[in-house]
Amino acid sequence: MNVVALSGGVGGARLLYGLERALPPGELTAIVNTGDDFIHLGLRICPDLDTVMYTLADLGDVERGWGLANESFAAMEMIKRYGGADWFSLGDRDLGTHLLRLEALLAGESLTAITARLCRALSVSATILPMSDGVCPTKIQTESDGTLPFQEWFVRARATPRVKKVRCAKGTATRQVTAALECADLVIISPSNPYVSIDPILSLPGVRARISGKRVVAVSPIVGGAAIKGPLGSMIESLAGVAPSPTAIAHHYGSILRGMVLESGDRCEGLPTLATRTVMRDRNDSVRLGREVLSFAQELS
Amino acid sequence: MNVVALSGGVGGARLLYGLERALPPGELTAIVNTGDDFIHLGLRICPDLDTVMYTLADLGDVERGWGLANESFAAMEMIKRYGGADWFSLGDRDLGTHLLRLEALLAGESLTAITARLCRALSVSATILPMSDGVCPTKIQTESDGTLPFQEWFVRARATPRVKKVRCAKGTATRQVTAALECADLVIISPSNPYVSIDPILSLPGVRARISGKRVVAVSPIVGGAAIKGPLGSMIESLAGVAPSPTAIAHHYGSILRGMVLESGDRCEGLPTLATRTVMRDRNDSVRLGREVLSFAQELS
Repeated sequence: MNVVALSGGVGGARLLYGLERALPPGELTAIVNTGDDFIHLGLRICPDLDTVMYTLADLGDVERGWGLANESFAAMEMIKRYGGADWFSLGDRDLGTHLLRLEALLAGESLTAITARLCRALSVSATILPMSDGVCPTKIQTESDGTLPFQEWFVRARATPRVKKVRCAKGTATRQVTAALECADLVIISPSNPYVSIDPILSLPGVRARISGKRVVAVSPIVGGAAIKGPLGSMIESLAGVAPSPTAIAHHYGSILRGMVLESGDRCEGLPTLATRTVMRDRNDSVRLGREVLSFAQELS
Repeated sequence: MNVVALSGGVGGARLLYGLERALPPGELTAIVNTGDDFIHLGLRICPDLDTVMYTLADLGDVERGWGLANESFAAMEMIKRYGGADWFSLGDRDLGTHLLRLEALLAGESLTAITARLCRALSVSATILPMSDGVCPTKIQTESDGTLPFQEWFVRARATPRVKKVRCAKGTATRQVTAALECADLVIISPSNPYVSIDPILSLPGVRARISGKRVVAVSPIVGGAAIKGPLGSMIESLAGVAPSPTAIAHHYGSILRGMVLESGDRCEGLPTLATRTVMRDRNDSVRLGREVLSFAQELS
């Protein structure tokens, strides 16, 4: 069975961890948002891609949700001492990843190929695919601060400027992404932010067309009327003009969705649902939820 | 008084430390070899420039002679884990320097301007000038391994392949370098390797012409018939066909030299000499030697 999951960072990575361990090796392909990527200190930063890679390699910092466990920040301290930009934190071990990526990009290797090579070295059995090998920067049109590059809004401005519009870049999905979608038996949309983590993938030409008609299941990132983490709650209010709910998520994804997994006690109108514990606090939660999502998706007509 | 010192890395940096502290602030300009520079992991590595900067900022690792004190190597450990190139060690704090340099170079800033900015942030009072803003890679023609880029020979091959010839690149000195040489009252040649640290500076067009006729004093890197550190001893034997001695050093520099500072007990034919303790074990040694070198040079006719 070929399972493809679309994912952003933290919450998405946690579900991917569960899906990977619930499936035989090699059956999971993760298509990861690169709309958050940017160049910082000369490095190509891929926050979602690295969060997914570190999480699947079991090297991630579980509590923080991003970056590596047992991380140190000596390089950042030195950058601070020089008066350099310190608003985006890069750990020392994490810099190892970034330097190998820099070296490979300069040598002309694609982001897809580099990611595959790094994943192999870390013994990740799932296939992790960046959605694009090109540059597809998501921009945030705010009410108070003009249009900001994603990380300037999300990290530097702590996602406080109210969002008027999210602008996904016009990019190109890789051939590995389109091939994976064509072969997919199930498509899982991770509990990531639909606007800034999943839409950048769905808006690439050919992606929606390739998954429509397939068994597509989303896991709701809204639990009990609020986002588990991040600015999604207020974004739904601003952008959709409704209260945050699984129904709002289902409405956002529209006709591609065939089922929704949501928190026990929550409801979603107009779709088959699986109600369970969706908040993943540890690896056991992830594996249990991964199994439940797969069973639910397979049973859908 | 304007004092200009030509320098490579470790030994040169130690003398610069003493010269800087022996002079009023602002009187010392160090012109530093960049023939050892190379691109590694996508970063511009400037071994001599950084050794000089860290040493003058009193942040250097005194025992190792290069890199920063209290350094950690978490990024390198991660690179090793990925199977990346680990033959050239870069510390985590040191990576802070490299990332700011990478960012600035990509933004079009010159190496001279970047170095000045980093030095200011570290409160270095001397002016540290890279010999060139361009790329001037020194190549080592070996007897056994063909022609190697400098660091491939020096670090990766541990300077063991016997040297047939050192090829300094044809580069261009910066206007800051030529201006400093024109205004120099004294020129000190640090106890660095003449072939690979000083010749790359002297061979830039216009450099020799600008120092000839000035009071130029060298500190011998040969003590008791051997190099204090590194492959200089065997290089003199291979390249000059003589035993290592201060006389061989004086002969190498030729007519530009007006005096030589050497270790008590050593001799140098044909030049005024100052015999003293030239081996610098700690900062006090550097400051004492710096004072002695300056007095000796000033007293030369």
